[in-house]
Amino acid sequence: MNIDLVEKVKAEIRDVVDFPKEGIVFKDITPIMLDPQLSNEIVEHLATQYKDSGITKIAGIESRGFLFGYPLAMRLGIPFILIRKKGKLPYKKVSYSYDLEYGSATIEMHEDAVDANDKVLVHDDLLATGGSAEAAAHLIKKCGASVEAFNFLVSLDFLEGDQKLKQFTDNIQAIVNY
Amino acid sequence: MNIDLVEKVKAEIRDVVDFPKEGIVFKDITPIMLDPQLSNEIVEHLATQYKDSGITKIAGIESRGFLFGYPLAMRLGIPFILIRKKGKLPYKKVSYSYDLEYGSATIEMHEDAVDANDKVLVHDDLLATGGSAEAAAHLIKKCGASVEAFNFLVSLDFLEGDQKLKQFTDNIQAIVNY
Repeated sequence: MNIDLVEKVKAEIRDVVDFPKEGIVFKDITPIMLDPQLSNEIVEHLATQYKDSGITKIAGIESRGFLFGYPLAMRLGIPFILIRKKGKLPYKKVSYSYDLEYGSATIEMHEDAVDANDKVLVHDDLLATGGSAEAAAHLIKKCGASVEAFNFLVSLDFLEGDQKLKQFTDNIQAIVNY
Repeated sequence: MNIDLVEKVKAEIRDVVDFPKEGIVFKDITPIMLDPQLSNEIVEHLATQYKDSGITKIAGIESRGFLFGYPLAMRLGIPFILIRKKGKLPYKKVSYSYDLEYGSATIEMHEDAVDANDKVLVHDDLLATGGSAEAAAHLIKKCGASVEAFNFLVSLDFLEGDQKLKQFTDNIQAIVNY
């Protein structure tokens, strides 16, 4: 890991206390978007990390997973797949529901986005309890493809979200780990 | 305009009938994301178009406005601002509400995202009736910055959304116009 990059990313992440609710310290990544040089460095770093990994597509989880997922896919020259909340994607799709602290959520993917030959990198900005990344992986498997790796900008390691993801692959990485 | 690029983008846009409701033909841009070469060409085209325009920041409207907005900002070496639905941004923010066909919507932007010196390009994937782009422009003006241009991947010209945007600037462009 590039220690210099890790420190630069950490320096830009803003802690917002009591968001979205009391007692939570939210990791706000939007200051990174205001820094185009650092943004480009992150994409370059990820491209170096995954260029010989055999991944054939990147799936980004709505909506912050689109931010680095798509630029990375363009940089690697591979397709980008949108994983979205229920009701947003227009074409034929597969869906997967999962439990939240209160209630449940459903995510969807176009059914022609992957096929049995695909080895997919699932990307999101933040790994917390791992529910949405796990659901994304189930969607990809439902379409016959395999999940080759998970990547996050930030991982909240103390929440142990990786425990939900190891059923798919041990290749679970983040730039910044807390 | 690069006619070859326009035709390539048009060829990838998928018409989905009766989405999100009966009688609407939805322009599905997700096949473009599956084509990394075309995706890169679009970013290069937009970068050429705006590199000497004097814009200092790009504001992308959640969530499909993130797809090309952020890569373009990185390519131009300028900051990218996220305009999101109410309740998503964690830090101090400004908000703007606007009417929809049924009910209303509120969008938000971090208040430190722009200042009085900024000339902002507002980007989204699709210009329809112009409500969300107009609201985004009001947010930017509320923070003291000016709206220099609007850019869309696709414009549904027959809906005349540009009529809502001309109060800010005449620089309103799309790659594909229907």
